[in-house]
Amino acid sequence: MSIYKTVLAAIDLTEEADQVIKRAQELCKVHQAELILLHVVEPVGYAYGGDIPMDLTELQEQLDKSAREQLAGFGTDYSIPEKNLMVTVGRPEAEIHRVCEERAVDLAVVGSHGRHGIQLLLGSTANGVLHGAKCDVLAVRINT
Amino acid sequence: MSIYKTVLAAIDLTEEADQVIKRAQELCKVHQAELILLHVVEPVGYAYGGDIPMDLTELQEQLDKSAREQLAGFGTDYSIPEKNLMVTVGRPEAEIHRVCEERAVDLAVVGSHGRHGIQLLLGSTANGVLHGAKCDVLAVRINT
Repeated sequence: MSIYKTVLAAIDLTEEADQVIKRAQELCKVHQAELILLHVVEPVGYAYGGDIPMDLTELQEQLDKSAREQLAGFGTDYSIPEKNLMVTVGRPEAEIHRVCEERAVDLAVVGSHGRHGIQLLLGSTANGVLHGAKCDVLAVRINT
Repeated sequence: MSIYKTVLAAIDLTEEADQVIKRAQELCKVHQAELILLHVVEPVGYAYGGDIPMDLTELQEQLDKSAREQLAGFGTDYSIPEKNLMVTVGRPEAEIHRVCEERAVDLAVVGSHGRHGIQLLLGSTANGVLHGAKCDVLAVRINT
């Protein structure tokens, strides 16, 4: 019986990512599901845009490039095909919801700690991943 | 490969409970895990105790009794042995954490809607199930 067909692991690029990917990959084996790896790069402008009168395009491009390289590394380490490695730019919770719908994800896996953990799940307001998710959401307990 | 050995489904007693139990039971089949069903009765005193000068013991006992009967009904419907049907009294998130540790639960399953859904996961403050959980937590998307 297959409960989940497509599992999305939403990862930050800290040392927690490995635990999230490993758990997601174990689940994919058990459920015979496909694994998609997603990292959402937050637009630099969200954090600094209004205050600093400078062009952030280059910084953003560097962040994107770095994220793509790191994700490619995970892809190699965990044998995940390139088509299932996604880097997008935007608000993490919104991007996760968008990709989940776009790729018909039925389980989103996130870490339960770290910047992209609890904060991502709960959101700073009522906009966390759990709110408005159209699929099941698994919070993986991170062992620190 | 068995990722989860003991799964706890924390349910309210609304129509959502069936969806949470069904998903938890499907997962138990896939993971060859044991299923524990928990319903936490909130102490009446939390809601009304301070304001109304009356003895709430009888009301509390009625709530407990009703909860036990409903949980027994779920036990019958889903063939869950009596030893794995638990009704406790307390704050839901604290009780869920306590039972998870006591019974070595490695996956807690909750609904993502309703009074015991989002509110339970997130808590009214920072005390939701996700905070301080020592195991993975799955929020089941409830179809209304």
